[in-house]
Amino acid sequence: VKGPELDLLITGAEILDVFRLRAFQGWLGIRGGRFIYVEPGEPPRGVPTRHTVEACGALITPGLIDAHMHIESTLLSPRRFAEGALPHGTTCVLADPHEIASVAGEEGIRWMMQAAAGLSLRVYFAIPSCVPPTSARLETTGAEVTAELVRKLAGASEVIALGEVMDYRGLVAGDERLRGIIGAAASHGLLIEGHVPSLLGTELSEYLSYGITSDHTLMRPEKILELVGKGAALMLQLKSLAPENIAAVLDLPDRSRVMLVTDDVDPARLRTEGHLSSIVKAAMARGVPWEEAFSMATLRPATYLGLRRMGAIAPGWTADFLVLEGPGLFPPRTVYVGGRKVAEEGELIAPVGSPGPPLPSNLCYDRFVPEDFLVKLDLQECLANVVSVQSEDNTLTDLERVPVRLKGGRVVLGPEDDLALIAVFSRDGSSRSTGVVKDLGLKRGAFASTFSHDAHNLLVVGRSPEAMALAASRACEGGGGIAVADEGGVIAHLPLPIAGILTDAPLDAVASSFNQIEDSLRRFGMRHARPFLLLSTLTLSVSPRYKFSDKGVVDVEARRLIPPFINP
Amino acid sequence: VKGPELDLLITGAEILDVFRLRAFQGWLGIRGGRFIYVEPGEPPRGVPTRHTVEACGALITPGLIDAHMHIESTLLSPRRFAEGALPHGTTCVLADPHEIASVAGEEGIRWMMQAAAGLSLRVYFAIPSCVPPTSARLETTGAEVTAELVRKLAGASEVIALGEVMDYRGLVAGDERLRGIIGAAASHGLLIEGHVPSLLGTELSEYLSYGITSDHTLMRPEKILELVGKGAALMLQLKSLAPENIAAVLDLPDRSRVMLVTDDVDPARLRTEGHLSSIVKAAMARGVPWEEAFSMATLRPATYLGLRRMGAIAPGWTADFLVLEGPGLFPPRTVYVGGRKVAEEGELIAPVGSPGPPLPSNLCYDRFVPEDFLVKLDLQECLANVVSVQSEDNTLTDLERVPVRLKGGRVVLGPEDDLALIAVFSRDGSSRSTGVVKDLGLKRGAFASTFSHDAHNLLVVGRSPEAMALAASRACEGGGGIAVADEGGVIAHLPLPIAGILTDAPLDAVASSFNQIEDSLRRFGMRHARPFLLLSTLTLSVSPRYKFSDKGVVDVEARRLIPPFINP
Repeated sequence: VKGPELDLLITGAEILDVFRLRAFQGWLGIRGGRFIYVEPGEPPRGVPTRHTVEACGALITPGLIDAHMHIESTLLSPRRFAEGALPHGTTCVLADPHEIASVAGEEGIRWMMQAAAGLSLRVYFAIPSCVPPTSARLETTGAEVTAELVRKLAGASEVIALGEVMDYRGLVAGDERLRGIIGAAASHGLLIEGHVPSLLGTELSEYLSYGITSDHTLMRPEKILELVGKGAALMLQLKSLAPENIAAVLDLPDRSRVMLVTDDVDPARLRTEGHLSSIVKAAMARGVPWEEAFSMATLRPATYLGLRRMGAIAPGWTADFLVLEGPGLFPPRTVYVGGRKVAEEGELIAPVGSPGPPLPSNLCYDRFVPEDFLVKLDLQECLANVVSVQSEDNTLTDLERVPVRLKGGRVVLGPEDDLALIAVFSRDGSSRSTGVVKDLGLKRGAFASTFSHDAHNLLVVGRSPEAMALAASRACEGGGGIAVADEGGVIAHLPLPIAGILTDAPLDAVASSFNQIEDSLRRFGMRHARPFLLLSTLTLSVSPRYKFSDKGVVDVEARRLIPPFINP
Repeated sequence: VKGPELDLLITGAEILDVFRLRAFQGWLGIRGGRFIYVEPGEPPRGVPTRHTVEACGALITPGLIDAHMHIESTLLSPRRFAEGALPHGTTCVLADPHEIASVAGEEGIRWMMQAAAGLSLRVYFAIPSCVPPTSARLETTGAEVTAELVRKLAGASEVIALGEVMDYRGLVAGDERLRGIIGAAASHGLLIEGHVPSLLGTELSEYLSYGITSDHTLMRPEKILELVGKGAALMLQLKSLAPENIAAVLDLPDRSRVMLVTDDVDPARLRTEGHLSSIVKAAMARGVPWEEAFSMATLRPATYLGLRRMGAIAPGWTADFLVLEGPGLFPPRTVYVGGRKVAEEGELIAPVGSPGPPLPSNLCYDRFVPEDFLVKLDLQECLANVVSVQSEDNTLTDLERVPVRLKGGRVVLGPEDDLALIAVFSRDGSSRSTGVVKDLGLKRGAFASTFSHDAHNLLVVGRSPEAMALAASRACEGGGGIAVADEGGVIAHLPLPIAGILTDAPLDAVASSFNQIEDSLRRFGMRHARPFLLLSTLTLSVSPRYKFSDKGVVDVEARRLIPPFINP
């Protein structure tokens, strides 16, 4: 053993080798933020080192790397997200700041990059590609990402990808704007992240032929085989970890392009279940050998992302690693980034950075009254184009024509019809639309949120104009937020002052408010496993199959608008 | 099927899917140099296309990608190399112009890049790291690659790696110059190619810890397991394809970082056996499933090299592909690069480029006389430090002390002693050394070459000063070359006018002269499977274990010089 003194010597460890998918008993030497020695057995006597740790047989794995995620889904600023994710073992993410870009454009993206700089968590960036989500003018959006902006941002060293190309129908139809954006990203050597929930065969090929390098949407076995065989990197999020999908993946003779990702994680799940760790655990619980599951969350994403010498315990590789009691035992005993201990027993051991500069909200609303939720149709009966929820664990929707009665613009909701009012108000006050949704389970009260995918216009869903006005008024206080109310008043509230979609409050407080919001919605009858996810994606105009915007009902596959009510 | 007309539609093909390691019957659509459609079955009727090819069940595979090779080993200019390699299915190489750099430094590297630009063959470059091979002044070298030169060259888009760090002993000892070069390359994001024939354990880790990303030297099973587990990409050249190594590789649960490479291919092998194709065939012959063997020569090297969307038949991926009668049936029926047919039935269908600008030789020799090969020792008997050949199929050498008799400076060689004289003359005329080699099998005649690894000083090996003078004189004609002579005159000659190491003559002529040289050496008694390889690496001061330079015998592992004769 030669060379200068080590910074850290770890002995008696069980070391995960993600290349050979095995663990072995051995020791590690670390210097200058990198592993120098990764050896079996015991170190030779007298290795010069500043510190020594006896691991007592604990498992050492690489830090977890999340190749597809949106920090905004936690409703937290980057530093608060890092405070939540690092203690659970996530040491590196590719963040697609899609939500903040939708609200605040270039200023929002730059804010996110600035707020993430210098954190212990390694944050790489994808430039959001679909802001607005489509070129089809299906909603009012607050910002635009252009090819020119992609070229401006692509030079930054932390930018390594173009964010998910969600407008798959637009791209297959040859959308010029999107092709320009992809061309700009490709010419800078960026990865081009995909999002392709519903294409197969020649249409899938047409989509991928633009240079798309991955997909992370809901999988099923045939889709897995086709995506892999057509060269797309396969990203499995929680909802894709069905037994039949796991079986299909484990049958692949080469799984080097398969990885686990979080995509969206709400603050309550981040606090109680962890971050990418929870996906690793879920994969293990569903039959993925633990060494495979870790490789899919360490080496394989690092390889995909082109992050050289990251994602493994090997000489010369970055010393980002976890000390665990055993394969699935999260949170880790300790978390190291660049050879420095950053978290211990589920807690950060030092603050992770600054909140970032202020980023005010552009929401133009103040107070709402019940009249804001009346339908401007001078009719007593009509047919409504109703968006109906299809499942209690995914966000798929359909369209139904339902006869409704109107009384002075007020939609009459019956006790057993499982209908609710939905209203979307554009952030700039220029546009609004009111309609009906079905099969939420909501029996009373109202929900309002200035965080609603992707344009983050104000979304209000409820059983009465009175409750909706109360919820909407509170949600808009201080620039934005989420609120639940019944006719008697506001029941739960989470302020989101940063651009109206994020907060710099600590995770514990945010998770607690978030739980109150979801618990209230469940008390009001909602059956969905994740009420906020379901509601906040009712406005997502690129997610199958029917959504609601400030301009009416959106037919996602056809990329067109449908009026909420049919005026006979 | 949407979008503009295809350039080429191929139907009725058997398509290799290197992701899923299977082949399937299907069709391909190509436009703008990329695959658009890669589909099973038959195309829909009326797909708009400019050309259609009916493959009649022929196999379509990606073009072969060689991640570690030296064009100079073929003795050909880049265009003549491309003429030889493309028809055998090599469509992309990472060239390490180590030899031309050793002779002509920056000018040589730039010449190589210029001569390779615009060829149908895709040529990426590694900047040679070990010019001179070591900092230990073991020989006279003509050029130097510095950290500053690495920084100057690293910005070129075709430069993606630092060439093999051969001075592994120097690096482990902390050689400052080499660390500076590696640091410069790493800061530009280059891969750092390794060369580590003899280190294991903590020494191997110390070597790899500098950022080394691969090794391609002779493998054995324990070394394979250790290299893979320590994160090095594994490159298998022909000599590493021993059954026990193949078994070790096929036992790896993740083979995504294993690839096949050529390293050095002489012109005769290039003409008769092909290029990377011959390694693919050898791997198949030794039990590697053909889909695996192709993946190791297509997708896996492309992934390692960071060449996005190359190395597979997939939508959006570069349309470099081969049409074969069957898995091992090289040369391909046709070879396509960027969707354009470049070769057919083993022949190029169009010239591949220009010869490149002139690059004169810096060799200062003209004519030699027998007296140039006498030993300047006024003794009748002494002990010689003799470099002895250890094998007939590798280049490993050892050292023996052998008593020799001298007669007026002439070493007396007996009929059965299996000794030969060796002399190395520095290119600039400043230095020379004469000594003895053993176990070549050479019984008469002489060999001279201005191509001799790595400094490419003039190497002369022979059984008599007279034959050596004739061979050396002819080898130096016109700037450099290789010659074989006996006492009666020159028997075989290959001129190498470009820097004294390469020629722009066509492959057929070069291979023919090369065969004459090797056949003559075999007639003179040489037993080695590859006489030129053995002789031209007798001077390679980083190859185990004892070599010969213009300064004497080189002890490679100890990095020191030993006198050829022991003056008592």
